[in-house]
Amino acid sequence: MPEPATPYLRVDLKRLRRNIRDVADRASAAGVGVRPHVKTHKSPEIAQLQLGAGAIGITTATIGEAETFSRQGCEDIFIAYPLWLDVISARRLRDLLGTTTVTIGLDSAEAAANAGRLLGDQGLRVLIEVDSGQHRTGVLPRDAGRLAELAARCGLDVRGVFTFPGHSYAPDKLLSAAKDESDALSDAAASLREVGIEPEILSGGSTPSLAAADTDVLTELRPGVYVFGDAQQWELGTTSPESIALVCRSTVVSHAGGRLVLDAGSKALGADRAPYATGWGRLLDHPGARITLVAEHHAVADLGENPLPPIGSTVDVVPNHVCAAVNLADHLYVDDMGEVRDWPVAARGQNS
Amino acid sequence: MPEPATPYLRVDLKRLRRNIRDVADRASAAGVGVRPHVKTHKSPEIAQLQLGAGAIGITTATIGEAETFSRQGCEDIFIAYPLWLDVISARRLRDLLGTTTVTIGLDSAEAAANAGRLLGDQGLRVLIEVDSGQHRTGVLPRDAGRLAELAARCGLDVRGVFTFPGHSYAPDKLLSAAKDESDALSDAAASLREVGIEPEILSGGSTPSLAAADTDVLTELRPGVYVFGDAQQWELGTTSPESIALVCRSTVVSHAGGRLVLDAGSKALGADRAPYATGWGRLLDHPGARITLVAEHHAVADLGENPLPPIGSTVDVVPNHVCAAVNLADHLYVDDMGEVRDWPVAARGQNS
Repeated sequence: MPEPATPYLRVDLKRLRRNIRDVADRASAAGVGVRPHVKTHKSPEIAQLQLGAGAIGITTATIGEAETFSRQGCEDIFIAYPLWLDVISARRLRDLLGTTTVTIGLDSAEAAANAGRLLGDQGLRVLIEVDSGQHRTGVLPRDAGRLAELAARCGLDVRGVFTFPGHSYAPDKLLSAAKDESDALSDAAASLREVGIEPEILSGGSTPSLAAADTDVLTELRPGVYVFGDAQQWELGTTSPESIALVCRSTVVSHAGGRLVLDAGSKALGADRAPYATGWGRLLDHPGARITLVAEHHAVADLGENPLPPIGSTVDVVPNHVCAAVNLADHLYVDDMGEVRDWPVAARGQNS
Repeated sequence: MPEPATPYLRVDLKRLRRNIRDVADRASAAGVGVRPHVKTHKSPEIAQLQLGAGAIGITTATIGEAETFSRQGCEDIFIAYPLWLDVISARRLRDLLGTTTVTIGLDSAEAAANAGRLLGDQGLRVLIEVDSGQHRTGVLPRDAGRLAELAARCGLDVRGVFTFPGHSYAPDKLLSAAKDESDALSDAAASLREVGIEPEILSGGSTPSLAAADTDVLTELRPGVYVFGDAQQWELGTTSPESIALVCRSTVVSHAGGRLVLDAGSKALGADRAPYATGWGRLLDHPGARITLVAEHHAVADLGENPLPPIGSTVDVVPNHVCAAVNLADHLYVDDMGEVRDWPVAARGQNS
């Protein structure tokens, strides 16, 4: 195919395969399952690579993502979210259950009663969400048993507990977040046992904390970003530029004021900027450069004393947060040893 | 239609019409044209409301946006971007020129020579971009004449000058940015006259600086955000909650840790957060509340001492930057006095 119009997302298939294999191999050696979060790539082709490498199922954030991947043959899906169901979303889940093993997240008595009322007759599978330190969602580990007991009384099938150690996204927190994750899941599992529920699944995992995950405690890992890597992982030290498998190829459109201005703005890269990030993205081939200003259709890069690539040339930008960048694109352009193929971002925008 | 699944973008048609009419009336009274930037709404229905209220044409950021709106009958389009053309994009512009008056931006000798080579035979219309203080793209005002002269020699039809006073996006810069805009366009116009080119168009405008725009100098205004308003404009004091015409309706999914957790995350709201922003978005009906944490599918709101809306209820979030939120959605759900209609975000993701 001809070179797509910039800005576009370009995937290095060799690196992608290697990233998938590396995590699969490490998990296999540790005897823990991998259930990748597909919100990162939203691409059935990549899910198939993950399942082919031994993933035990997939993770989604929404029913819409689960529907997309179920249609493409994924048979075991965990929706890692404390869903609030209404009549329509319950009907969508019921339809999914016809072909697919579906588990959802739960972190409140209200949602347990509601899900039980709508889908208790299906014995809907749930995992109790616990807060391991990110302070976003999830009950305290010691409260997991009480909620599990209530959920079971509502007709739900409690299979275990899960957490997202999102506080691992900080330069000095990778190890401690993995410890928090392990402690929270252990304590929550003990709390379930106290009410007579044996947890089969202790699910955790984030890309930054992956290497430190306590595989003696966790039964499955749910990393997402590891398939591609991004500037956040680069800056956290959990990937290297040589492993980054997705870039936004962009064109130099201006040298105004001696600046390097690219056509990849926040509508292609996303606007994520974590407190520890040194810019709005990085350039794969200029490790010292930083994106210092991002507008919807402009990225301004500081290359220090280096000469500016000419107007009209292309530059590969590493987005800060690859999940956000992918969700802006309808297609991934996949470079397989020089031959470029178009993989649809099939679940793009599936927020419900 | 049934209530769409949350999170979804809900537009108040009455407020939208009023916002469009207010700017149209003020511009008309001042004798200046309005050429709205449609990157904000990406919706042909809204462009038709703007044209119906007297807009002299529309502004886009990309050829793809221009194609979408041209197909819907917009006949006069300014692509306010220093496009770098290749053979394919030049062919797309040539096709557009068959039905539509198209003008593009220009800020470098390289792009002038390139556009002249590819489309000089069409007498392609251009406006010279000048930097009025944002320091993103654009030549210095005094250099506009030299670039205009070169562009004319390359076969391009130089119609005037434009700027985006994007430094108006700061609490104390609204007035001074409007003054900078006026000065830069005046100086650039003088620079064009020095080389014998009479500028017909002096184009400026941003939503924050709109009320202060110097309509004695500017011939047209290109605001975008004014149609909806957003939390940025609310915090800059350029709109009030009573005028905000777009919200992201979201569901309360958790009260974990005493927090209000909504299902509208950065994949629905965007992740924009300007230095002056007090959070990642605001709640329309709780002016004191702030979004204090945003993840892809979660927003955590701080309501202070106020009671939390119950799990399962809905809350209307005002995104920080409405252009980013709209570009994440495939549909706008438009509330016309209680009846809800679905308007497609027809140019969503048209980044090229």
